[in-house]
Amino acid sequence: MTNLKQVILVRTDIKMSKGKVAAQVAHGAVNCALSANKKLLKNWQSTGMKKITLKVESLEEMKKYQQLADENDLVNSLITDAGHTEIAPGTQTVLCIGPGPEIQIDKITGDLKIY
Amino acid sequence: MTNLKQVILVRTDIKMSKGKVAAQVAHGAVNCALSANKKLLKNWQSTGMKKITLKVESLEEMKKYQQLADENDLVNSLITDAGHTEIAPGTQTVLCIGPGPEIQIDKITGDLKIY
Repeated sequence: MTNLKQVILVRTDIKMSKGKVAAQVAHGAVNCALSANKKLLKNWQSTGMKKITLKVESLEEMKKYQQLADENDLVNSLITDAGHTEIAPGTQTVLCIGPGPEIQIDKITGDLKIY
Repeated sequence: MTNLKQVILVRTDIKMSKGKVAAQVAHGAVNCALSANKKLLKNWQSTGMKKITLKVESLEEMKKYQQLADENDLVNSLITDAGHTEIAPGTQTVLCIGPGPEIQIDKITGDLKIY
């Protein structure tokens, strides 16, 4: 079986509290899990649902990774904050990619630093 | 339709980085979403998947809330970290409760502070 993982890219150019970041990351992770292929989802669950948070420095950078994920047919979800608190409504905060094959995800995001 | 939400309780008595907290919270949120009643899950998704992070001060406090969630038949998930990084293997880090009726979740966790 392939090693599977999920990565969540967090923008470092907008100011968010720890709790805000956590909620945005969770939002992305749930969206992606619910959109994933059921067999892949099951395999990912049974192997500990590996999840890594990574840093991106801007919206443009985040969108570049989304395009790469799309081109590689990896499930992904860009989260737009409702803006009830802390940041302006409509701000795009995090990008979740996967669950997907670790080797394929690393090819795209392998250069990013751990958040 | 009832207002639905999910809350994730984070222990403040263990030291974790922002990224670590986010990954643990996401783990709990995904676990709970995948265990939720399908109709309730759909309603929660269609209303923006409301998610709030809250503070608990100890493992004992977190477990007390899990018991309350169980007694109220609310889907919940206590996350045990694999401990590859930062904290000791087997440390229980976060408790996710819901999605469930906001009124019912607030009855249990309404006194907790925002994380």
